[in-house]
Amino acid sequence: MFKAVMQPIRELLLFLFLAIFSKATAMKPGYDSRASVPSDGGGSSYCLSWRLAVEANNVRAWRTVPTQCLRYVESYMIGGQYDRDVELIVDQILSYVNEIVLSDDGMDAWILDIDDTCISNVFYYRGKRYGCDPYDPSGFKAWALKGGCPAIPAVLSLFNELVEGGFKVMLVTGRDEQTFGQITRDNLYKQGFIGYDRLIMRTAADKGKSAVAYKSEIRKKLMEEDYRIWGNVGDQWSDLQGEYPGNRTFKLPNPMYFVP
Amino acid sequence: MFKAVMQPIRELLLFLFLAIFSKATAMKPGYDSRASVPSDGGGSSYCLSWRLAVEANNVRAWRTVPTQCLRYVESYMIGGQYDRDVELIVDQILSYVNEIVLSDDGMDAWILDIDDTCISNVFYYRGKRYGCDPYDPSGFKAWALKGGCPAIPAVLSLFNELVEGGFKVMLVTGRDEQTFGQITRDNLYKQGFIGYDRLIMRTAADKGKSAVAYKSEIRKKLMEEDYRIWGNVGDQWSDLQGEYPGNRTFKLPNPMYFVP
Repeated sequence: MFKAVMQPIRELLLFLFLAIFSKATAMKPGYDSRASVPSDGGGSSYCLSWRLAVEANNVRAWRTVPTQCLRYVESYMIGGQYDRDVELIVDQILSYVNEIVLSDDGMDAWILDIDDTCISNVFYYRGKRYGCDPYDPSGFKAWALKGGCPAIPAVLSLFNELVEGGFKVMLVTGRDEQTFGQITRDNLYKQGFIGYDRLIMRTAADKGKSAVAYKSEIRKKLMEEDYRIWGNVGDQWSDLQGEYPGNRTFKLPNPMYFVP
Repeated sequence: MFKAVMQPIRELLLFLFLAIFSKATAMKPGYDSRASVPSDGGGSSYCLSWRLAVEANNVRAWRTVPTQCLRYVESYMIGGQYDRDVELIVDQILSYVNEIVLSDDGMDAWILDIDDTCISNVFYYRGKRYGCDPYDPSGFKAWALKGGCPAIPAVLSLFNELVEGGFKVMLVTGRDEQTFGQITRDNLYKQGFIGYDRLIMRTAADKGKSAVAYKSEIRKKLMEEDYRIWGNVGDQWSDLQGEYPGNRTFKLPNPMYFVP
């Protein structure tokens, strides 16, 4: 009850803070304060349309977040709505999981992406104006090598339910094995992702492959090993498209970047 | 400029009207006023998460809109955000269309769904509590037989651009030819959808087929006639999934009902 009352108040305070902060920085070049007040009117209604279109895969191959949506995306990511969106999707996943009758051959598999699915890069993207700045490979590399990506809490719960339920959880990521193998394992372990079956990363042989091609190939190999892919969860449509996508796919929100 | 100033004021007035109306009907059984104020806090943040999950195809086979989202969906559909969402998607479609180089063999095709893609059923759904009431086949039949579905303005513009641009526009609908053939043709004509190549409706042979199976078959036949399906636009994921979906698909919003 207390939480129910405090939640809107917390958000209101955050919005006020963001609104004031946004005014204070409105004069800085490169900032656009049109979308500073997260309401359904004015600039943020455009940003809401844009975010919806991204999530429904209507806007593709976008390189940066529209500048006027900086405050909107910031407020979305850290103001609570992103968390609630993820929680609702995880609830849907769990309803589906609870209907699955696992066989006893140990071949019931589930695929999870890593970045912004299991663990979050939102603190990195804060420094990149929540995706209004273009992709910076060396900046992202330095961030990922710190191994400090926090778990996305609802997905960690899902992960634990899947592992405890007897699924073989396969973590499939576009991260390169040689560069990020050890730090990714450590980061996942520290954040509580313990008990997965495999961590599958890009090797030298996968260099240059698109995410769709690379991830399709991984899934094809799993199918050839006779795994049943019951579910596939990612924050990018490229995690979920291509061949053998899995019996059900779930798209987690990500308005900060697009992986082709 | 005047429009830019008036738009938020019009919306504010509508919101106030909805909020007051919602209070006035809050005591009626079956109504839930929790989501009456369209803000990012409280009940409507759940409804925003729900709507996003529907549009990203994470929530499937849902039968009715959650009751607490009645006011939210009403406000979304008639308060301007739905129109803006459709407009942004149509802008995306037109950017894509403008990149296509048509050949001169007359085989460049585009598929549009009809209900809640070309023409709107929102006035019918207003009487069904915007989808909080379960699907009512005879009620919908009576409505559709009036032939009074208004055009969705942004899609009518798109339609005209496609026809003028030289695409063979195929309207593909789950409506039954025998029952709705003439009235649908009349309704489309009255609303300005003039110049399409074919109107393809369900025949007796299609009875009982799922939307995905029926629409895939139609697309397969078009492909066998050597049409190139450049685009496919619908308000249901079942318009866009299955075989031969088209070179690009676009999902228009529809938080009122789900067609499996």
